[in-house]
Amino acid sequence: MVNGREYRLPRQPTVVFTIDGGDPRYLDDAFSRALMPHLKTVLSNGGVYALGRGCMPSLTNPNNLSIVTGVSPSLHGVPGNHYLDPASGEEVQLSDPRFLRAPTIHAALQAAGARVLMVTAKDKLRRLLGTGEVPSVSAECADRLELPAFHLGNVCELVGRPNPGIYDWDLSQYAMEIGLAVHRRLGLDLLYVSLTDYVQHKQPPGDTMADRFFQRFDELLAEYAREGFLIGITADHGMNAKPRIIYLEDVLDAAGVSTARVVLPITDPYVVHHGALGSFAWVHVGDAQLERARQAIAALDGVEEVYSREEAAVIFEHPTDRIGDLSVTADAQTALGKSAAKHDLSAIGNGLRSHGGRHEQIVPIIVSRPLREPYASQHAAGVRNADIHELLLNAVA
Amino acid sequence: MVNGREYRLPRQPTVVFTIDGGDPRYLDDAFSRALMPHLKTVLSNGGVYALGRGCMPSLTNPNNLSIVTGVSPSLHGVPGNHYLDPASGEEVQLSDPRFLRAPTIHAALQAAGARVLMVTAKDKLRRLLGTGEVPSVSAECADRLELPAFHLGNVCELVGRPNPGIYDWDLSQYAMEIGLAVHRRLGLDLLYVSLTDYVQHKQPPGDTMADRFFQRFDELLAEYAREGFLIGITADHGMNAKPRIIYLEDVLDAAGVSTARVVLPITDPYVVHHGALGSFAWVHVGDAQLERARQAIAALDGVEEVYSREEAAVIFEHPTDRIGDLSVTADAQTALGKSAAKHDLSAIGNGLRSHGGRHEQIVPIIVSRPLREPYASQHAAGVRNADIHELLLNAVA
Repeated sequence: MVNGREYRLPRQPTVVFTIDGGDPRYLDDAFSRALMPHLKTVLSNGGVYALGRGCMPSLTNPNNLSIVTGVSPSLHGVPGNHYLDPASGEEVQLSDPRFLRAPTIHAALQAAGARVLMVTAKDKLRRLLGTGEVPSVSAECADRLELPAFHLGNVCELVGRPNPGIYDWDLSQYAMEIGLAVHRRLGLDLLYVSLTDYVQHKQPPGDTMADRFFQRFDELLAEYAREGFLIGITADHGMNAKPRIIYLEDVLDAAGVSTARVVLPITDPYVVHHGALGSFAWVHVGDAQLERARQAIAALDGVEEVYSREEAAVIFEHPTDRIGDLSVTADAQTALGKSAAKHDLSAIGNGLRSHGGRHEQIVPIIVSRPLREPYASQHAAGVRNADIHELLLNAVA
Repeated sequence: MVNGREYRLPRQPTVVFTIDGGDPRYLDDAFSRALMPHLKTVLSNGGVYALGRGCMPSLTNPNNLSIVTGVSPSLHGVPGNHYLDPASGEEVQLSDPRFLRAPTIHAALQAAGARVLMVTAKDKLRRLLGTGEVPSVSAECADRLELPAFHLGNVCELVGRPNPGIYDWDLSQYAMEIGLAVHRRLGLDLLYVSLTDYVQHKQPPGDTMADRFFQRFDELLAEYAREGFLIGITADHGMNAKPRIIYLEDVLDAAGVSTARVVLPITDPYVVHHGALGSFAWVHVGDAQLERARQAIAALDGVEEVYSREEAAVIFEHPTDRIGDLSVTADAQTALGKSAAKHDLSAIGNGLRSHGGRHEQIVPIIVSRPLREPYASQHAAGVRNADIHELLLNAVA
C-alpha cells in the first residue's frame, strides 16, 4: 500500500518514460510521418494510447513527483519547481528530498524486494526522485555519479559513450541508454526514466531536432521491448508557443499595488529553455491589497484563472503552505513574468515555447500492452499521468 | 466492484446528504453563529470536515451523478443539466436514465442485498438517480409518487404533513423527512438525499431564509443521528453573487461569427432560480469560425478558461460527444448567457446568485465519524464529492 493504493510487484521488467514537454502533438506528428515505427507496431498489437491529464501547474517537478507517488501535490508537497519559503522570505528550488511528503512507489516496491532504479536527464530532479534510498543517476552527471547500491562505478563506461551536455538534443536518450545498460548488466524490475524538454522548448513538432529526438526515442523503445520490458510512456506537461508575455509586477505597480511579490514556479537553474517564463504564477501580496491585485490581474487579456490561496488549494490540489496568496494561470499563447527588467530573453532566440498552464496539462498516456476492465474504459476516458504506475502494475490484461 | 472501486456493504444505516448549492460559506457562517449545534457536536466528537472539489461544470446533474457513481462525467456521461443533441440539433434536458453510462453505487449495493433509497427535493433529478431499479421518490411529487418496491403508498401520509411547493424554503427538509420516515418504517441500509438550491440562489449566508434552512437541516441531522445513521454531507456546487452577465451570442455576433450557437448546461425547467445564467457555457460553432470565436470570447474580462472540445474533454473529464466545440468558464462575479433577448431576468429579483464555474467547485466534505489512514490524510488534503461514498463505506475508523 503506497499513498492509499496497492501496487503489485512487477512480474516482468517494467519501465515508465516521462517525456519532459512530451506534448501529444509531437507524437501525433511523428506517427503521421512514420517516424516512430516501433511505437506504431506496439499500438497496433494491442498497446493503448489516450490523452490524459497532468497536475497543475504543468511543470516538471510537480508532475514527476505525482507520477512516482501516484498522488497530487496536496499530498506529495511539491507544487512547483520553485517556491517562496514563508519562513525565510526567500525563493527556493523545490529540489531537496526534505520537501517530499509522500513516499514513492519505487521506494515501497524496493522495500518489498524489487530492484528499482531512477534515471533522470537533468540532475536537478534526481535527488527528489531518489528519496527513500532509491538508486538514482542522471545523464547530466553520469561522468561523476556512481551506483554503489549496484556496485557499479563508471556509468559512462557502462553505456559505452561519454554523456552529452545539457543543451545537446540527446541528453534524454542518454538517460534511456543508462537504464538499458544497467538492466543488461543486472536485471531491473522497475525503472523510471525522466527525460528533459530542451528540444521541446526549442522546436515545435516536425522541426529537425524534434524529429531526431522522437526517432531515437523510438529506436530505444525497440531496444527496451527486445529486453522484455513492459513499457509506459507519459509526459509531465505539454508545450505551446507563447508570443505574449505579461509582467505581473509591472501590472501591479501600475494598479497601485505596492506590496506584491510575484513568484514563478517554473523557475529552475536552466534559463536557456524559457527564461523562467511560463503560464502559471503565484502572487504574494497580503490581505490589504489582495482584492485590488486580484482585480488588476483578472482583467488582463491572456490571464485565465485567478484564485485565492484557499481556492487554489482545493481546485489545483495544492498544499496551502507552499503556494501564493493568489494563483494565476495564463492562456495557451501567454506567459507570465515578474517585471520586464527581471527576465533575460536574450537566450530564447526563436520565440518562447513554454508551459505551466492548463493548456499544457494534456499528456499522452501509453501502455505497451492491452488493459483489462475497468482500467481500459477509464484509460480511454482520460486518466492522470499519476495513474501510469497503477496501469502498468495492476491493470495489464 | 462499481466503476473500478470496491465498496463494502453498509454495516450501519448510512446516509449521504447533498446540499444543492451548499457552499462551505453557508456552513461556516452558521457555525460561527451557533446555528448548527448538532453538527458542531458531531465535529467535536471526531467527525471530519474539509473542503473538497466537485466536478465541472459546477452544476446539479453532473455532480449528483458523480456522487452516486463515484466517477467523472467522462465515464458517467452527464456533463450538464442540459446539452445539444448532435443527432437532432435540439437542446435536451439530461434527465432521462438513458443518458447515464455508469451504474450507481446504490444499484450495485442493492443487487448485493442492501436496502437502498434515493430521495430528491426536485423531481427532475429523481429518474436519473433511480436508474437500475433503485427505489426513488421526490419531495416535489411526494403527493403523487408511491414506493411500490417497499409496498408503501402515500408518502405524504408517512411523513405526516403535506409536501411543500417547489419554491418553499423547506422542500429540501421535506426530502430529509421522507428518508427518515421510510427508515423508521422499514429500516434502510443506504440512503441518498439530494436537496435543492432555491434558498441558496435567493440568499447569501446569514439571511433569514438561509438561516432557517440550515437550522432545520441541523435539527434533522440530529434525528438521523438518533436513528443510528452514519452521515456524510457534501454539496453539488457552491454559490456566488454574479453581478455581471456576458451574453456570448451577442459578443460573437459583434465579432462577425455568424454560425455560433451557445448552449448553457445550467438550463433546467425552473428558471426562477437563475434564469439559466451560470458561469459555464458551450459554444457550437464549427471549424471555420472556431478560432475567431475563441479569440473573441477569450478577450472578455470576466471569462476565465476557453478550451477546444478535445482540451475540455481531458481537463474537465467530459464525454466528447456531449459538449460544445468550445467550453467557456467565467469568474466568480460573472454569468454567461445566450443573448440579452433570450433570458428573462424579471424573476431574479434581488440580483443573480448562481454557479457553474470553477469558483463554485469548492464544496464541504463531512463525515460524522473519524476516518482511518490513508483516507484521513487524503480527506484533509481535499478529495472529491464523488469520493464521499468511499469515505463512508470503506474509510470510517
